[in-house]
Amino acid sequence: MTAKQRYGAGIWHFATYVDRYATDGYGPSRTLLEMIDLAGQVEDLSVVDINFPFVGQGVSLSAIDQALDRNGLKVIGITPEIYTRQFSKGAFTNPDPGVRRLANQMCNEAAKMVRHFGADYVKLWPGQDGWDYPFQVDHKALWTASVEGVAELAAQNPDLKFVIEYKPREPRVHMSYDSVARTLLAIERMGAPNVGILLDFGHSLYGGESPADAAQLAIDHGRLFGMDVNDNMRGWDDDLIAGSVHPIELFEFFWTLRKNGWEGVWQLDQFPFREDSVAAANSAIRFLKRIETALDRLDIEGLKAAQARQDAVAALDIARSALFG
Amino acid sequence: MTAKQRYGAGIWHFATYVDRYATDGYGPSRTLLEMIDLAGQVEDLSVVDINFPFVGQGVSLSAIDQALDRNGLKVIGITPEIYTRQFSKGAFTNPDPGVRRLANQMCNEAAKMVRHFGADYVKLWPGQDGWDYPFQVDHKALWTASVEGVAELAAQNPDLKFVIEYKPREPRVHMSYDSVARTLLAIERMGAPNVGILLDFGHSLYGGESPADAAQLAIDHGRLFGMDVNDNMRGWDDDLIAGSVHPIELFEFFWTLRKNGWEGVWQLDQFPFREDSVAAANSAIRFLKRIETALDRLDIEGLKAAQARQDAVAALDIARSALFG
Amino acid sequence: MTAKQRYGAGIWHFATYVDRYATDGYGPSRTLLEMIDLAGQVEDLSVVDINFPFVGQGVSLSAIDQALDRNGLKVIGITPEIYTRQFSKGAFTNPDPGVRRLANQMCNEAAKMVRHFGADYVKLWPGQDGWDYPFQVDHKALWTASVEGVAELAAQNPDLKFVIEYKPREPRVHMSYDSVARTLLAIERMGAPNVGILLDFGHSLYGGESPADAAQLAIDHGRLFGMDVNDNMRGWDDDLIAGSVHPIELFEFFWTLRKNGWEGVWQLDQFPFREDSVAAANSAIRFLKRIETALDRLDIEGLKAAQARQDAVAALDIARSALFG
Amino acid sequence: MTAKQRYGAGIWHFATYVDRYATDGYGPSRTLLEMIDLAGQVEDLSVVDINFPFVGQGVSLSAIDQALDRNGLKVIGITPEIYTRQFSKGAFTNPDPGVRRLANQMCNEAAKMVRHFGADYVKLWPGQDGWDYPFQVDHKALWTASVEGVAELAAQNPDLKFVIEYKPREPRVHMSYDSVARTLLAIERMGAPNVGILLDFGHSLYGGESPADAAQLAIDHGRLFGMDVNDNMRGWDDDLIAGSVHPIELFEFFWTLRKNGWEGVWQLDQFPFREDSVAAANSAIRFLKRIETALDRLDIEGLKAAQARQDAVAALDIARSALFG
Repeated sequence: MTAKQRYGAGIWHFATYVDRYATDGYGPSRTLLEMIDLAGQVEDLSVVDINFPFVGQGVSLSAIDQALDRNGLKVIGITPEIYTRQFSKGAFTNPDPGVRRLANQMCNEAAKMVRHFGADYVKLWPGQDGWDYPFQVDHKALWTASVEGVAELAAQNPDLKFVIEYKPREPRVHMSYDSVARTLLAIERMGAPNVGILLDFGHSLYGGESPADAAQLAIDHGRLFGMDVNDNMRGWDDDLIAGSVHPIELFEFFWTLRKNGWEGVWQLDQFPFREDSVAAANSAIRFLKRIETALDRLDIEGLKAAQARQDAVAALDIARSALFG
Repeated sequence: MTAKQRYGAGIWHFATYVDRYATDGYGPSRTLLEMIDLAGQVEDLSVVDINFPFVGQGVSLSAIDQALDRNGLKVIGITPEIYTRQFSKGAFTNPDPGVRRLANQMCNEAAKMVRHFGADYVKLWPGQDGWDYPFQVDHKALWTASVEGVAELAAQNPDLKFVIEYKPREPRVHMSYDSVARTLLAIERMGAPNVGILLDFGHSLYGGESPADAAQLAIDHGRLFGMDVNDNMRGWDDDLIAGSVHPIELFEFFWTLRKNGWEGVWQLDQFPFREDSVAAANSAIRFLKRIETALDRLDIEGLKAAQARQDAVAALDIARSALFG
Repeated sequence: MTAKQRYGAGIWHFATYVDRYATDGYGPSRTLLEMIDLAGQVEDLSVVDINFPFVGQGVSLSAIDQALDRNGLKVIGITPEIYTRQFSKGAFTNPDPGVRRLANQMCNEAAKMVRHFGADYVKLWPGQDGWDYPFQVDHKALWTASVEGVAELAAQNPDLKFVIEYKPREPRVHMSYDSVARTLLAIERMGAPNVGILLDFGHSLYGGESPADAAQLAIDHGRLFGMDVNDNMRGWDDDLIAGSVHPIELFEFFWTLRKNGWEGVWQLDQFPFREDSVAAANSAIRFLKRIETALDRLDIEGLKAAQARQDAVAALDIARSALFG
Repeated sequence: MTAKQRYGAGIWHFATYVDRYATDGYGPSRTLLEMIDLAGQVEDLSVVDINFPFVGQGVSLSAIDQALDRNGLKVIGITPEIYTRQFSKGAFTNPDPGVRRLANQMCNEAAKMVRHFGADYVKLWPGQDGWDYPFQVDHKALWTASVEGVAELAAQNPDLKFVIEYKPREPRVHMSYDSVARTLLAIERMGAPNVGILLDFGHSLYGGESPADAAQLAIDHGRLFGMDVNDNMRGWDDDLIAGSVHPIELFEFFWTLRKNGWEGVWQLDQFPFREDSVAAANSAIRFLKRIETALDRLDIEGLKAAQARQDAVAALDIARSALFG
């Protein structure tokens, strides 16, 4: 790749967090403008994904534009917050049709923001769409509503792209859009050209997928519209620093992107609960650059030959040799 | 349901087993005829699924017919053993085209046996098709071969049904046909009317699915051709006695079948390594009959109303009330 | 057991919750007094475990006493909140000695509340004591601080009991007190008679233990000072309604308590994020009463005989017969 | 460390395997002598751990001695096969006292072999000691027998060391010796100076431990008598090539050994089902040497300072810098 690789991050990387125990939060809350100014301190960050509605009292669009400008950042996507209190039993699948309408409205508002910023997509992460208990839902009705809710948005905004970020679970015990294959099934059923997948490396990993395989499948269906990375212990969406636990599978993931000529932004979706967020982003991006270098020196012919005979040892040796230098 | 529910079992339920530690096996090996005679001792078993090639030196077809007859058993499916030594790097996806041809031949031989026994389907469980290590395989090539291998069989035998039994892993660290959604994607790509899914309750459970939801999805795609049950600890395919760990989700699974009017055989896929196999089958079937009774007394209207508002407590109370009497 | 079984709950069962996505909470926040009034609506609840500091602006001790009185509730334990923002890098193991002192002070304040209410114990749940990343901590130093922090409290308050509620993880990626065996090792090292375990059924389950086995081990060491129940999918601390997923293992857990003559309170530790909390408690307690009935009709002699020969089928049949009626 | 690091392997690394599906094995079976000759082909292997009874018809002690000699190998430990058919319901915990006696006899025979070879220890891996189902066993009786069975061996052979290799599960659904803490509890109860732990990196990892933390705990109790490494996907004992999935935690594990001055053999416990076993061993050992180099260049002072303030980013950066060069 001759073009310089661009890096991005979800702006929530620079927020502070609460959870069900530290209800007073892991730090004082930050406005969107403060987050953007933190993002600007990261060494090599070009784009951000922004939550909508904008976080902070009376944060104006022009103030956001200025903050982005002074930090040299563009917007890649807008993430409507369809997972807060009013959506706690679902956005697209909420039992209350009034709430489903609210979700649709919020996503349409987010679409306007995508147009304003010249961003790439509305990102849909329907984290409250799913179930918690056996017998709680009518699975057929729930899935139909999941599919139709996104299809409706795609039809309402044919000029825009929508990406679905699937995830196995959390906050619901089981999410409707739980895997790459299930999401592709839904997209095929929608038949809409402007709906794709945002593949989160960590979601794939802890859902039992191989992220490289998931990326290949989404690419083969023409639906890999975006991606982000982080890491975890394979049991939960820990959103740790990329390459802190699974560097080899991370490398395989990026190798899959490169071999397919996928040239989008490499984004971070990390939650540095107890860490300095700028340092956490810098650490990740430095490691991603190491991966870029490793991709450049990967023995591609040797790897292909090893894979052609499923020679795990030879393939691993080639990969480790490139990655560990 | 007015018709009497029929019960079935994989004939391997009545085998003895080896594993990588007890290499001398958990008991003396048994021939297919001995297994059939054990199956005949189970109180209420109508059909069996038989591995092919037939286990035991010189076991003839007519001897099998006789054994089935004297035990009042029919054959529901034939399972070609496309996961033994020669297929250790895959059947449909083996790097060696000669081995792929062998797999195809074995499945076609199995198809003949389906015709001989008047069975319902060839069951494909490609347990060695997948990968173990990062970087080991070309995921695109592997998946293409997975899909095409089954499509070829379906085209060669348009008079028969083929069912794919997906499973997350084991013996490969990751299996190609790993989930209900992935398998449905493959079947859609094949475009063959005679390929469906055999849904194993335990595979679904330990793959992170809700088996009830997986069944609904397969039914909605018109592809639930068969099923079997067992139980596990959600981390591995333990093949324990059905209803020994997850009775409520088992109940939800059967409720999903009934509400959709799915009227096939209720089969067992258990591996009683250290147990009396007849006793283990009887224990499971007695519990399945309890579930049948519970289905009859389930407050369907109350359940639907609870689900319509995602009222987990009410739905759970209704389900527990029916199941625990 | 001739004495009437008493039931209890963590008062947080009646709170509303936040998580990292629904940052506006799953409902309007509630004061401790409101929670107590909700607890009073549960059909058969005798005791509660109360977080300290008390939740709500200016909630006085006498107001709490009155609220408990009017709802017929006693206090079984006090849980100091050693897992909020200031303790986000640990309470007993915080790198900052000043914060460790604060944790000690808060626990000593909680001890005074135990004396005020005539409760049974201070409950220690050091959810922030642990680590997130490889290489993040000096494991020897961390574990020593974990042990010594509790030992110090026990020495400072020899008239009171302290219970440690172990848990594998969350909010830290790994908690120091992660399992029954590790906690018992720590208690042995402390050598204090007044430190024991509060065994949470769900923590045990998702930590890969058998809760029945964990309870037996704690009892054999003379350290099972308390317990609570809930349920989950074995991968996370879902805090679902007791008996909603694993009723048979729940039954085995209570059988273990009874056979050992353990006669404490049966407590709930559930988080009904999206459910009516009174209904969720009632549903659980009704199921626990079903378990009490099942214990009364369990074929104890048959079970012991089956266990003496490790006859899983016979043992399971006996257990299911008692539980499913 | 000035002394040259020694490497070892379980001799079963060079066997072929069966599992419950590939019942004809992943290759033709090999005798112990053949395995030793394969082990001799590995570039840098000094010691092996040998199963007892010796594999292969009429393999004599002197033939084994010669095979070891001609391959420049010593014996580090003897592993009695207390997990084959006769022990399928347990060795130390078998319900049949006659089988328990057989287990004791086999271990005593293995002890003689330790003396013959001048090896370090008898390795006990009681893989069949545990349970599969809820209600199957009396947990108190089972655990007592687990502890006493090992204590008896230690008392019978005070001149020798016994190491327990704990593991969460497989082949039993739950193993008695399931974790480092549980095993240490048992050893404390035994009160025998000659019983310790052999810590398997992969067992620790998929049991939810941090292997570095587990090693530290065993060392602090004076009980880390041996270790071996491999890798897995954190859900099962995959016995993959060391450093193929979790290189950073592997590095932390070895850092823990070095900082404590633990100077034993670095052993492999890999199961190359479908791989060339010599190549798999060479690949692993080459990576372990990379780790040795990384240990030499680790910024120890920087790491300690980062750990002293739990600065995950700084610690990770230091570790990655050393490992990835």
